Amino acid sequence: MKVNGKNYRTIWIDRGVLTVINQNKLPHRFEMAELHTVSDVCDAIKNMVVRGAGLIGTTAGFGMWIAAKTASCDNLTDFKKWLFHAAESLKKTRPTAADLQWAVERQLKEIEKGISLKEKIQIAMDTASVICETNALSGKKIGEYGKKIISDISKKKSGKPVNILTHCNAGWLAFVDYGSALAPVYAAYDDGIPVHVWVDETRPRNQGANLTAWELSMHGVPHSLIVDNAGGHIMQHGMVDMVITGADRITRRGDAANKIGTYLKAVAAKDNNIPFYVAAPSSSFDFDLFDGIEDIPIEERDADEVRFMTGEMPDGTIGTVRICRPETAARNWAFDVTPARFVTKLICEHGICNASEADISELVLGSKQ
Amino acid sequence: MKVNGKNYRTIWIDRGVLTVINQNKLPHRFEMAELHTVSDVCDAIKNMVVRGAGLIGTTAGFGMWIAAKTASCDNLTDFKKWLFHAAESLKKTRPTAADLQWAVERQLKEIEKGISLKEKIQIAMDTASVICETNALSGKKIGEYGKKIISDISKKKSGKPVNILTHCNAGWLAFVDYGSALAPVYAAYDDGIPVHVWVDETRPRNQGANLTAWELSMHGVPHSLIVDNAGGHIMQHGMVDMVITGADRITRRGDAANKIGTYLKAVAAKDNNIPFYVAAPSSSFDFDLFDGIEDIPIEERDADEVRFMTGEMPDGTIGTVRICRPETAARNWAFDVTPARFVTKLICEHGICNASEADISELVLGSKQ
Repeated sequence: MKVNGKNYRTIWIDRGVLTVINQNKLPHRFEMAELHTVSDVCDAIKNMVVRGAGLIGTTAGFGMWIAAKTASCDNLTDFKKWLFHAAESLKKTRPTAADLQWAVERQLKEIEKGISLKEKIQIAMDTASVICETNALSGKKIGEYGKKIISDISKKKSGKPVNILTHCNAGWLAFVDYGSALAPVYAAYDDGIPVHVWVDETRPRNQGANLTAWELSMHGVPHSLIVDNAGGHIMQHGMVDMVITGADRITRRGDAANKIGTYLKAVAAKDNNIPFYVAAPSSSFDFDLFDGIEDIPIEERDADEVRFMTGEMPDGTIGTVRICRPETAARNWAFDVTPARFVTKLICEHGICNASEADISELVLGSKQ
Repeated sequence: MKVNGKNYRTIWIDRGVLTVINQNKLPHRFEMAELHTVSDVCDAIKNMVVRGAGLIGTTAGFGMWIAAKTASCDNLTDFKKWLFHAAESLKKTRPTAADLQWAVERQLKEIEKGISLKEKIQIAMDTASVICETNALSGKKIGEYGKKIISDISKKKSGKPVNILTHCNAGWLAFVDYGSALAPVYAAYDDGIPVHVWVDETRPRNQGANLTAWELSMHGVPHSLIVDNAGGHIMQHGMVDMVITGADRITRRGDAANKIGTYLKAVAAKDNNIPFYVAAPSSSFDFDLFDGIEDIPIEERDADEVRFMTGEMPDGTIGTVRICRPETAARNWAFDVTPARFVTKLICEHGICNASEADISELVLGSKQ
């Protein structure tokens, strides 16, 4: 997608070095970060220099390539141990994201097929590239499928903008390109369908205020920032036509883990008869799990993310303020789970389906076969 | 209630001057503000130096006394005009709060009864004092009634703390003393019932992080700060035994306007079979209104409250950061309405009742007669 008129992805290889947009600096600074070691990659994922289901997976995919090429061992047994250790480190960085586990496991399986060290490193690079390209392509396809939903709503609104509420950032910054929840919005906008996006600020890390508002404005999509508390009120007053979010992990029956607070929007949408869509590539589906609330591990992060808030100061520098007393205790879960019964439809790169075991299995597994 | 061991109310007369705790400075500074003119009072309410349903009403009550005593006119016709003008200014400051309208109207009616200017000023003072004392007493009674609910839950928890989620601040800082939603918590805590409060930070103005966490810690009540997004997750995982909030206006059928985001907690509580209580003095009930979503006016405040965040800087000074790009548009509604069907029970100074027209009428109007 475009940043100040120039095309960017969130991750790429620049003269042999894994390079990413440093998302902790947005929207105030547009800076890159270079990742040279497995430890760099782990830190970038943990500290959310890169974040978002798809981008975490892709970054971990390249992380396994970095692991392979930086292995300082001359025999395959040690190499395998080293790689396994790197895989464990990467998988631990963000326990909720299904794409992360999926990308790392896929790399382990593929790299295993190589005969020589050299060949294994090449396979790691090829696999990371496939994961990366597949992710970008999935976003594009999700955009096309989802656009139809927005277009259908638009037809009933006689020219008035379709009001779309989204939580957190599931735009192109959360993927390699295009995004999941925002991909249909971009596709609709590019097709001339009038849209307006309600951007939940998404405390504690403000991915809505920092990332979603930034990428929508870079693309010219009309939007308004609201606090996470506001969604119910605007739903009650007919100001929301649909809700669409991404997902970090979806169980086989359609329970979806996504940024904390998504569930609150889902129950309110149901209470107001507003459709609630979840968009995610097939790599975010976890067929081993059924009951999302019981089974999806929910990451708990540093409480200081709740207690402190970062932004731009009046003098243009970046500053951090503490919003409570120094001794106030806080808790900070990163995700919640929206049960399938609140999900109107799921959108993935293979199409649109109901949030039910049979339909998911047919669309996602069926398309994989 | 106690601040660093010393008893305080939120509002009092100090050597003839209306004095309030400056709530915009909490929790980082504990400072007072003096209000000398009607314009001072209007600004203090508008800018939330004082806030919270009960305290707004009481401050406006004293505001009418200030209006009476600062009237620079020598005849009753001009005085009446001046007073009416002051009343209009006060009522406009916060359109959603029922207590505000109620206190101002009550003053107009009472002051009318005085014969001389001197007598009218005295009546204004007496009426303001009655409103103030009644408000404090209501909080105390709400505490006693609500304590029973907490105590009943506690009996089933064999010594484990009762986990209570609250949104915004409906503690003693929102009233003259004791509070509404927090009054039962203090009463239970003082009785030795183990409690733990989940404090929603309450964006955009962070009354939870700034005020509720502060007053709970001053009283020693165990609590944890969470983002507004977290409530659903902790409800899904059995970490919430009850929700209790205040209200700024309650219709005759029991729809309750309260801080934006309250409704989202109410729908989630219902989805998880967790009781949801609304505590408010009878002065917050508006019998002229039936359908809260249609009829309660919802204040929209400056969008900069969403775009900026204030707190303590590392050097101990108070700073403000902008969390989005300078050009990002935002909207900022201050309240939402929780329909009666989500309210388990209402608690007021006369007792506890169902959120239904018949029961409210019997308890609130019946007790008034």
